[in-house]
Amino acid sequence: MSANRKPPAPAPLVAAVPTTTPFVAPEVLERTYGAPGMLRLGANESSFGPSPRAIAAMREEAPRNSWYGDPESYELRSALARRLGCSVENLIVGSGIDDLHSLVVRTFCAPGSTALETEGTYATFAYHVAAYGVRLRTVPYRSDGGVDVDALIDVARREQPKMIYLANPDNPSGTFVEPEAVATLRDALLPDQVLVLDEAYADFVPPEKLLQPLLDPQVIRMRTFSKAYGLAGARIGYAICDPQIVRTFQNIRQHFGINRNGQIAALASLEDDAFVRGVVDEVERGREDYYALAARHGLRSVRSLTNFVCIEIGTKAEANAFLEDLLRRGVFVRKPSAPPLDGYIRVTVGTPAERTKFAEIFAAARTPVRA
Amino acid sequence: MSANRKPPAPAPLVAAVPTTTPFVAPEVLERTYGAPGMLRLGANESSFGPSPRAIAAMREEAPRNSWYGDPESYELRSALARRLGCSVENLIVGSGIDDLHSLVVRTFCAPGSTALETEGTYATFAYHVAAYGVRLRTVPYRSDGGVDVDALIDVARREQPKMIYLANPDNPSGTFVEPEAVATLRDALLPDQVLVLDEAYADFVPPEKLLQPLLDPQVIRMRTFSKAYGLAGARIGYAICDPQIVRTFQNIRQHFGINRNGQIAALASLEDDAFVRGVVDEVERGREDYYALAARHGLRSVRSLTNFVCIEIGTKAEANAFLEDLLRRGVFVRKPSAPPLDGYIRVTVGTPAERTKFAEIFAAARTPVRA
Repeated sequence: MSANRKPPAPAPLVAAVPTTTPFVAPEVLERTYGAPGMLRLGANESSFGPSPRAIAAMREEAPRNSWYGDPESYELRSALARRLGCSVENLIVGSGIDDLHSLVVRTFCAPGSTALETEGTYATFAYHVAAYGVRLRTVPYRSDGGVDVDALIDVARREQPKMIYLANPDNPSGTFVEPEAVATLRDALLPDQVLVLDEAYADFVPPEKLLQPLLDPQVIRMRTFSKAYGLAGARIGYAICDPQIVRTFQNIRQHFGINRNGQIAALASLEDDAFVRGVVDEVERGREDYYALAARHGLRSVRSLTNFVCIEIGTKAEANAFLEDLLRRGVFVRKPSAPPLDGYIRVTVGTPAERTKFAEIFAAARTPVRA
Repeated sequence: MSANRKPPAPAPLVAAVPTTTPFVAPEVLERTYGAPGMLRLGANESSFGPSPRAIAAMREEAPRNSWYGDPESYELRSALARRLGCSVENLIVGSGIDDLHSLVVRTFCAPGSTALETEGTYATFAYHVAAYGVRLRTVPYRSDGGVDVDALIDVARREQPKMIYLANPDNPSGTFVEPEAVATLRDALLPDQVLVLDEAYADFVPPEKLLQPLLDPQVIRMRTFSKAYGLAGARIGYAICDPQIVRTFQNIRQHFGINRNGQIAALASLEDDAFVRGVVDEVERGREDYYALAARHGLRSVRSLTNFVCIEIGTKAEANAFLEDLLRRGVFVRKPSAPPLDGYIRVTVGTPAERTKFAEIFAAARTPVRA
């Protein structure tokens, strides 16, 4: 009987996966710190919300949550294809980019394969690399917080990893690799290598600064409605890649995994360019506010092409302590984990009111660590 | 340059996965048959929609789709734990049961492992088994359309598959295995075997007919808000299992994969028992309508403890042709793929108006195949 029974053992590969939580959520922090209603500037969610058209569409369709979403996301992919100038067959929709990270690692890496990235870049790619028993090779950021493309190319050639991950703009640094340098990396790929180009923040980048052409057989570009479109909770991301890769994904992906509300909202958002342009403009003003805030405190900040800014605090220990202090004061922000920005905090651009409040709490919490 | 480049090859295991679409969606059929607004009785979605409280909560929270959902689904798991009489640590939330199927196969089966199920049962478990390179062993249904528990036990002992899958009530047959028989299967498990007990339709079963106790170290029970709760599109399912298994899932699962709208809706639904009871009662009346419809046409039907009923048409070829005919007449239903019910169609319980319309179209489409 069950008294003597034990849970069966997982497969050896899964049993060997370390316990990692890529990101601690504000809800978890609120439970830990007992502070509901935190100033929520830590997850690069949009403080400007979804488009009013998306909100109206979600409200209108709320009773139809009883229907499964279209497993092919056909209307959404069609709208994206028209906008991007590619084919529906170049597009696959996932439950956010994280879902696509899992899919791409699973598809191309066998246990024992190697993936290459910048140490301390967006954590979820590395999380899935570990979870599939794949070896992670990293190179450090440059001393200015930029991605070191030369180092990526060097290791990609010498050690021949199956997959190279580049978040551009990068998270958590906010830095951007110019398209010429990305093209150099792309052109340096060995024939069987995949470049995962995570463009979660592409909407904040002037279009002429994005890698051309859109399509390359060895590049999988990932984009999302989580950031400029303000739909992080709706879990809608997509990959742009070769149709043959889409067909492979099709054989292993979760067919009914995309929630209907998210499809509806994304589709409605695509019809509201003016709203998204307004968000992008306001985010640019917000970045300037944060640069100015840092400067007023005699601190460095990192120029960003995203909806967040890294602000220098001091040493890694000082920045960690400062983050803790902000949490206790009801402010949720995060920070880079790796040098050279591990002495910085990362703060999402909020509304003007949120930025003012953040500046006040920042000033109150600030312990000068440099003269 | 890219002119000579080709998409990189997937890992061998993924390259070997066959192209399978577990279910063709009504949206796909509408595009194929050019008939928007089909009578949608094929995917066992609830025609009774979500609870009005869930609809109100989703509408209220629509602007907050810009926030990620809580990656721990803590409030929802807490509410479920209170209701079920278990601990939060016994629960994991997934983007529907399909997501949990993928997770459980990935966790326990290495490539080359074997999983056991009834031939023709819910297709998505087998889909994930194939997609992870796991061998599928099947036993047929009994001649009455019931799951053959004795045969499952026999093969489970002799061939020692890592995992045994039982959908109870079963989909697509609608049949139910009494709890005593499920307990016999559970008690026959070898020490390292996992019983995946897919209880997607448990809400339609009288509570005293569900397997006791709720928890067993070797049993992973899966439930969903997709059926009686009318939230298929919101993608919220959960597994009830040993905390050690939950911790293993935690190491490889998609942490921010659960959409916020779905969490909100599920939580609000749990506060509206009267609504769900009303749905369950109406579904029971609907099943009786379908039994009577079949009888009026001199056809057999299968007693069901779900929100759908299988109705006999004739041979497999005749049932396939009849299904096609219904599709052309604007009715979306599906049918079992395997004997003994491959000559039946499977129709979801609709509203009274939908049932009346279905009965009319059924009569018009019906070509007598038996005297």
